Amino acid sequence: MSVIESLNWRYATKIMTGEKISQQTLDNILEATRLSASSYGLQPYNVIVVSNPEIKAQLLPAAYGQSQIVDSSQLLVFSIWKNIGQEEVTTYINDIATTRGISPETLHGFANTILSTVTGLSEEQQQVWATKQAYIALGTALLAAADQKVDATPMEGFIPAEVDKILGLEEKGLKSVVMLAIGKRSEKDALASATKVRRNKDLFYSFVD
Amino acid sequence: MSVIESLNWRYATKIMTGEKISQQTLDNILEATRLSASSYGLQPYNVIVVSNPEIKAQLLPAAYGQSQIVDSSQLLVFSIWKNIGQEEVTTYINDIATTRGISPETLHGFANTILSTVTGLSEEQQQVWATKQAYIALGTALLAAADQKVDATPMEGFIPAEVDKILGLEEKGLKSVVMLAIGKRSEKDALASATKVRRNKDLFYSFVD
Repeated sequence: MSVIESLNWRYATKIMTGEKISQQTLDNILEATRLSASSYGLQPYNVIVVSNPEIKAQLLPAAYGQSQIVDSSQLLVFSIWKNIGQEEVTTYINDIATTRGISPETLHGFANTILSTVTGLSEEQQQVWATKQAYIALGTALLAAADQKVDATPMEGFIPAEVDKILGLEEKGLKSVVMLAIGKRSEKDALASATKVRRNKDLFYSFVD
Repeated sequence: MSVIESLNWRYATKIMTGEKISQQTLDNILEATRLSASSYGLQPYNVIVVSNPEIKAQLLPAAYGQSQIVDSSQLLVFSIWKNIGQEEVTTYINDIATTRGISPETLHGFANTILSTVTGLSEEQQQVWATKQAYIALGTALLAAADQKVDATPMEGFIPAEVDKILGLEEKGLKSVVMLAIGKRSEKDALASATKVRRNKDLFYSFVD
């Protein structure tokens, strides 16, 4: 399927069947998500992949009872790092050095650039920035899922503090920011056959030629 | 190319050739961007597509001289709506009604849900929320570009107020939040052949099975 066909095929599925997607399909979606672009390449977030029915049931009230929580195949919980500092940047720089077989010292300037950016932000600004990076990955995951003919519903409507508590994110230095339910659309979902509504291109785009 | 191949092929291109991509290719990237997911489907942002070399030259200092500004084929400037209120929501609801051939009155509940969400946010919170929606589209555009073998560099490093002034966004109620330079990688770009660095999947993911 082409990218445009995939995007036209997908919609924010309201009712899922509970059916499991295959391991290979899940792996492909996760790999695409992991390969997403990120400012400086830092990827300042983790993704929690929830399949466990009991944990999903616990998450349900924290997401105002939205049924995709329990009827998804998996629930991907995008969770930002609460703090980004020297330690995180050093780990990343060492990772680049190892992957590319170069000395970390050659990356000194790049390390300083990242550090001066992130330490110049307040804790709240850091979290907003990290969240934006997670949303790039969300966009990637949505398209990767559609490409695999897997339905996917981005979910912002939940209480992060409760989700964090259930998943033990606080003690890992993480904070949930957005979720993505992936699975199969149900025939009961009336929206499955509704015409997609997107802003007219003449309003959405303007051209400076 | 598969989604994963596309993501492995792409990188944040530092040096572009200035070569123009074809109209069809550009159209495909723009259409994919327009079809991106958005909370409630609202799409509270516009995209300015800058091809004009003189305007690009004006934008260059506002982006700290990063050469992709002028050497891109196009520069996509994602610009959020500064305010989201009754008018924007009504326009959207009427758009759904027209597209689906239904009465706007049947969407009254949905309209109220959107309105209560957006009016419950401060101006700053609204802008953060709109920015997150734009980043979903950024993620989509990045993958759509790679799928077309078009290079693309997301750019956060610029002075929004200056970009807004050059593009006349303020008077349109818009505010630039992120840019995407699209074009062709130059052979002079040493990063083109560098191994991609992404966080190890065992660190990036955790599974609640």
